[in-house]
Amino acid sequence: MNYQAPLKDMQFLLKDVFAAEAEWQRMPAMEETLDLDTANAILEEGARITAELIAPLNRPGDEQGVRHIEDQVLAPDGYQQAYATFAESGWVGLGGDPEYGGMGMPKMLGVLFDEMCYSASNAFTLYASLTAGAALCISSHGDEAQKALYLPKLYSGEWAGAMDMTEPQAGSDLRNVRTKAEPMDDGSYRITGTKIFITGGDHDLADNIVHLVLARLPDAPAGSRGLSLFIVPKYQVTEQGQLGESNGVVCGSVEHKMGIKGSATCVMHFEQAQGYLLGKKNRGLIAMFTMMNYERLSIGIQGLGCAEASYQMATRYAKERQQGQGGSASLGGESDPILVHADVRRMLMTNAALTEAGRALAVMTGLQLDKVKYGAAVDPEADMLVGLLVPLCKAFFTDTGLESTVHSQQVFGGHGYIRETGVEQWVRDVRIAQIYEGTNGIQALDLLGRKVMPKQGAALKLLMQMLDDTLSVLPANYAGYGDKVAQAFDQLLDGAMALKARDGQADVVNAAAVDYLHALGYATYGLMWLKILVALPQADEELAARKRHLAQFYFERLFPRFNAYLTAALVDASVTQEMPAALF
Amino acid sequence: MNYQAPLKDMQFLLKDVFAAEAEWQRMPAMEETLDLDTANAILEEGARITAELIAPLNRPGDEQGVRHIEDQVLAPDGYQQAYATFAESGWVGLGGDPEYGGMGMPKMLGVLFDEMCYSASNAFTLYASLTAGAALCISSHGDEAQKALYLPKLYSGEWAGAMDMTEPQAGSDLRNVRTKAEPMDDGSYRITGTKIFITGGDHDLADNIVHLVLARLPDAPAGSRGLSLFIVPKYQVTEQGQLGESNGVVCGSVEHKMGIKGSATCVMHFEQAQGYLLGKKNRGLIAMFTMMNYERLSIGIQGLGCAEASYQMATRYAKERQQGQGGSASLGGESDPILVHADVRRMLMTNAALTEAGRALAVMTGLQLDKVKYGAAVDPEADMLVGLLVPLCKAFFTDTGLESTVHSQQVFGGHGYIRETGVEQWVRDVRIAQIYEGTNGIQALDLLGRKVMPKQGAALKLLMQMLDDTLSVLPANYAGYGDKVAQAFDQLLDGAMALKARDGQADVVNAAAVDYLHALGYATYGLMWLKILVALPQADEELAARKRHLAQFYFERLFPRFNAYLTAALVDASVTQEMPAALF
Repeated sequence: MNYQAPLKDMQFLLKDVFAAEAEWQRMPAMEETLDLDTANAILEEGARITAELIAPLNRPGDEQGVRHIEDQVLAPDGYQQAYATFAESGWVGLGGDPEYGGMGMPKMLGVLFDEMCYSASNAFTLYASLTAGAALCISSHGDEAQKALYLPKLYSGEWAGAMDMTEPQAGSDLRNVRTKAEPMDDGSYRITGTKIFITGGDHDLADNIVHLVLARLPDAPAGSRGLSLFIVPKYQVTEQGQLGESNGVVCGSVEHKMGIKGSATCVMHFEQAQGYLLGKKNRGLIAMFTMMNYERLSIGIQGLGCAEASYQMATRYAKERQQGQGGSASLGGESDPILVHADVRRMLMTNAALTEAGRALAVMTGLQLDKVKYGAAVDPEADMLVGLLVPLCKAFFTDTGLESTVHSQQVFGGHGYIRETGVEQWVRDVRIAQIYEGTNGIQALDLLGRKVMPKQGAALKLLMQMLDDTLSVLPANYAGYGDKVAQAFDQLLDGAMALKARDGQADVVNAAAVDYLHALGYATYGLMWLKILVALPQADEELAARKRHLAQFYFERLFPRFNAYLTAALVDASVTQEMPAALF
Repeated sequence: MNYQAPLKDMQFLLKDVFAAEAEWQRMPAMEETLDLDTANAILEEGARITAELIAPLNRPGDEQGVRHIEDQVLAPDGYQQAYATFAESGWVGLGGDPEYGGMGMPKMLGVLFDEMCYSASNAFTLYASLTAGAALCISSHGDEAQKALYLPKLYSGEWAGAMDMTEPQAGSDLRNVRTKAEPMDDGSYRITGTKIFITGGDHDLADNIVHLVLARLPDAPAGSRGLSLFIVPKYQVTEQGQLGESNGVVCGSVEHKMGIKGSATCVMHFEQAQGYLLGKKNRGLIAMFTMMNYERLSIGIQGLGCAEASYQMATRYAKERQQGQGGSASLGGESDPILVHADVRRMLMTNAALTEAGRALAVMTGLQLDKVKYGAAVDPEADMLVGLLVPLCKAFFTDTGLESTVHSQQVFGGHGYIRETGVEQWVRDVRIAQIYEGTNGIQALDLLGRKVMPKQGAALKLLMQMLDDTLSVLPANYAGYGDKVAQAFDQLLDGAMALKARDGQADVVNAAAVDYLHALGYATYGLMWLKILVALPQADEELAARKRHLAQFYFERLFPRFNAYLTAALVDASVTQEMPAALF
């Protein structure tokens, strides 16, 4: 049986935990067009298309991989037709600008569809995700002509998108970008340089590929403030949107990777390619950053999607596979399904308790993005929360995603190591999500140094305000869990301020960041479980019973990790910094 | 540059931490033949052969994999010649019985060579490891004729070995083994059945493959006490050791796996194959178990080997790759090698602090095995320590091995996800070591239920006695670390006794086991770091400085995990057991 989207859980989050309809009523762009019934219908159709159209391509695509034959980059068999159907149904443009053919749906809904897509197939979904990302960037920074020319084609899937940032010498450190942009008399630019690790850099799913390329103008200042962003299509495009000649955009090679083998990761050469400035000169990184919050959240959700898909495989197996005799859960026969064993349950419940809290946090973060983008008024608090939550989601969803997929694989015993079983693919695929779109280490630096520490922890205090609101309506029988979370946030705030007061900030932040992020992750998942517990009276009994068990498991067995991470984060940076390089 | 064995560290452990020479002097089989100079010469030659002969085969073998062509199973190119050289040099028989051509070296030394081999190539090493394992089993349980017939050929590498236990319906639960053994008039047996996941079940590295097959006699009692062990060669063998006809041992298929792709994992069909009883009737499992402690320790060491090899790759990269500017460790240029960044150091030091403690524990466990096997008198304490430490080593080395290889991969950023870089292979390869030779969950059940809980924690108290001995000579400036470890062991003992006192032992042990094993792992690694600190005055300054930094890192940043694991282990089993199966 293929993946089936956890629709009931998703609908519970929208309706009961986050009161989506009331939120949408407060957004002028949504109040007329979106209600819960519509949202549910979209999710149901999303569940159908991901189960029926995409999931069946996942394993074969992993086996076949991307082929690079005589200058052509070919996605795995079946991708082309499925992508056409997917895009024609409007899914690439789900969050796109309605003025140019997008569906204008909020991110709060989009995160749930993102998760379904990643659960069905990481590799397939990346083609759509990069295209939606490029469209969002053009939508935010393009002029009218650029929007009219590119957006409808991207939303419809006729053209695809790619983001070209990394270069061999410029990975985490984009100051070193060397790709050049020379101005031409007609107002366009000639782009020359080499980019690496370009997801969807070339493929056969669309007629054209619209590259957004980070490059340097001749008179640009050195460093990251001298980078500009350019639209560089694979084939030249007339003002009417007709395709012209090749544009000097050449795929040099396709990488062989640990996973996401159906996704084309390309080395791209730009050879005097014609490009068009997107946004302002020398402000390319800032333009990238506005969309980066959406992309980073999506990549975080890749972690949730892998965890959920692997959970479904592992629970099915645990209910069928008979080995050993259980204790209290034994069915009394010669052998029991392995689900009776507490250790198997531990692995599955760890996955579920992490993934379901993560899904709630994804919806909440989507809501903050929507408040910023669609709110009736400027919302600085939502903006601050987006800044805090996005790097947390990106890194924590994917780090816990690795743990969860490993647990799922472990449930299968030896069978989990065999490719045909399918579960090992999730372990290989999820690893890239911890690395790309800014490594999780980079996310942690951003989180602690730029989001938590400034303004006396103002962003963290917003989360703590949410916690107070939740505690005020928390049923008394969960007060013990509430106390744990409240105490954790107090320690996080004190800890961040203590770190900030130390000398040598670069070292201090760098040494503490990843452990601090994990500590904040466990505290925030605690908050999510409290919010879920508060909403349980509205849920049906089956869903409520499952959530109560998972919440208990979370607080009793996983939450103790919080202290280990926070304690490690607060250790003096000298412990890492004083070991001489020669001793490594 | 290829892998280079950490010789200095290995020699420090033998000489200074565990006083190997004095131990060998107390073993009649060793006192004349083995001193430190000989051991060092063996390690140096081992370092040379692993770096020059084996390591270069690792990446190509992963790409090419095992081929199954027209009933022939072919190991990757280059394996055949390398295996011949390896075996002819005596390495397969390193720990083998000298009476039959083995070198008779102790396991205390063997574990270090094992680690080198796994660091060079998991897949290659498995062929030798299974052969040595089969030889050990024949050496322990075979009669004179069997030993004379098989051991010289196995040690010399002319023949290879394989262990055939698992069947489709009998994985962790060997009670369900169905393979049949019918007695024949000549005293031999006809073996019929199918075995799966047989490492080295068929290949072209040796002229014959000696299968040790777990099967059931017609009159055998049901369950695991009705299993007997049989020698079943691929080709029939005359009493003079000449090869005869095929023996009904057929490789049905070769598995496609996540990793160890150069190792042939086979489905084996036994079709009325002629077999010979090894050891006593219906005592097959017990015969297997005597060698299992060696095999399990070796597979644990696979985890250390992967961690070390990936550490070497990652540190080299971190010293070369320039991105960003560092804090206190900055070299002052435009960009620094990424080793200046505290988070990169955190990842590398986590790997090193875990791996070096693991290496010490492997040597200590090897010593206990040697005391049991070679000691002048029966040594029940060593025997009890073996029972306790082997499942701990197997599971904890491989679980921390996964964490360590993931850190190493993460240091490479995007490059770490590319197959050509080589580091991702360690992540894929190490995963099997958490699964096979008894999953780590099974190891944990054995550890907690059968080794820690019985006799009021007598085995744990032996470790605590070692700790007391170490504390009595620990320099005063490390007393804080000593206190942490002592407190941890007290909590472990109290915790185990509290668990034992609860009702419903099957559930209690199953729910607690893995977290308990991890808690014991962190405490025991703490003990290892104390033992290393005690020995530092004998080390050269460079080695001592590195160890001091790593010990500090271990106690400050990693040891806090102990509490998280022990707390989780002591949670009531109802938290996992009360969730109804239908809600999973």
